[in-house]
Amino acid sequence: MTDHTSLKIIVINSVVAPRDADQAALEQAERARALRIGLLEAGYNIMAVFPPEADLEKHITDLQPDLIIVDEQSDAALKRVVAATAEARRPIVCFTEDDDRQKMHAAIEAGVSAYVVAGLSAERVKAVLDVAMARFEVEQKLREELNETRLKLAERKVIERAKGLLMERHRCSEDEAYRKLRRLAMDKNLRLSDVAQRMLDVADLLI
Amino acid sequence: MTDHTSLKIIVINSVVAPRDADQAALEQAERARALRIGLLEAGYNIMAVFPPEADLEKHITDLQPDLIIVDEQSDAALKRVVAATAEARRPIVCFTEDDDRQKMHAAIEAGVSAYVVAGLSAERVKAVLDVAMARFEVEQKLREELNETRLKLAERKVIERAKGLLMERHRCSEDEAYRKLRRLAMDKNLRLSDVAQRMLDVADLLI
Repeated sequence: MTDHTSLKIIVINSVVAPRDADQAALEQAERARALRIGLLEAGYNIMAVFPPEADLEKHITDLQPDLIIVDEQSDAALKRVVAATAEARRPIVCFTEDDDRQKMHAAIEAGVSAYVVAGLSAERVKAVLDVAMARFEVEQKLREELNETRLKLAERKVIERAKGLLMERHRCSEDEAYRKLRRLAMDKNLRLSDVAQRMLDVADLLI
Repeated sequence: MTDHTSLKIIVINSVVAPRDADQAALEQAERARALRIGLLEAGYNIMAVFPPEADLEKHITDLQPDLIIVDEQSDAALKRVVAATAEARRPIVCFTEDDDRQKMHAAIEAGVSAYVVAGLSAERVKAVLDVAMARFEVEQKLREELNETRLKLAERKVIERAKGLLMERHRCSEDEAYRKLRRLAMDKNLRLSDVAQRMLDVADLLI
């Protein structure tokens, strides 16, 4: 676990209230300022603040933040951050005034690590971000395990099909078929499942 | 999603401060009271409050709560709740004064749906519990998917091994071996993987 002061954080919000802003927009701007003060007071380092309409994917690729804070009321902003981190997931903390349960559920399903409804006192900022980081790590581990298990299952299917094909064609035992596959994989310097897939791909041509 | 007023909640804490309580214990008792007032004011229904040393497993089995709140500083209390819900997982919300990151991480890894460090204002209670419920549902889905994929992988291994055995013994094709297995499964009214496992169990005796 890294020290929290060395975390690279980017914040997504509409920092500046426009000249003709209504009361709600002014309050949102004020809240955004308070959040950033809270972060700085808690020792965090804000790398950059972007409005939601910025090219988030590019900025995230460039800056490689450890944590992304979405402090913006529009659903669109959160959706864009989720899309921009789909390939390389990162902890996302979402501050919102909206307590709609369906939106909340969708955000968490999309991978938001912390979803904080209504104001946050400066002294709680650190605890919330710590929990979000821990949550992200645990969920990431779970997701990785799921992906690995899925991959193993898919690879096994391919290998078993190729083995069955060899057993039929060569009238050999399962062990022998497996050894043939493995020898080929070693010769070609490929994964067993890749050799199996190539064999299945061309099998129909070779009948 | 059920209405929040119909959720069955149990709270784990040491409600009553002992006569000779020190300042910390008195504050903890006061905080516990404030939390329960906050829950009631937000419309929640507290079914029961248990001290951490109660027979939690029995109470949870009896009451089938929708949500368990651990408002108790000892690690032991949280561990006992996690153990008591290992078989039938439920959303657990943990309120604590302890911002130790290792403990936080361990709690989240153990399946705690919300880990709230330091005081919680009454008006935020509902949002925190809503987020916890949504979090639990999403993680539960992920865990179930992982378990199903693991099971499929294990079953597949057993079925493929049994198929290979049949192909060797009967010098038959993969398709034929599969059909033999399936016919037996249907005759015996068993799952394919169960038939395969039984076949492997006795195979060595039948050589």
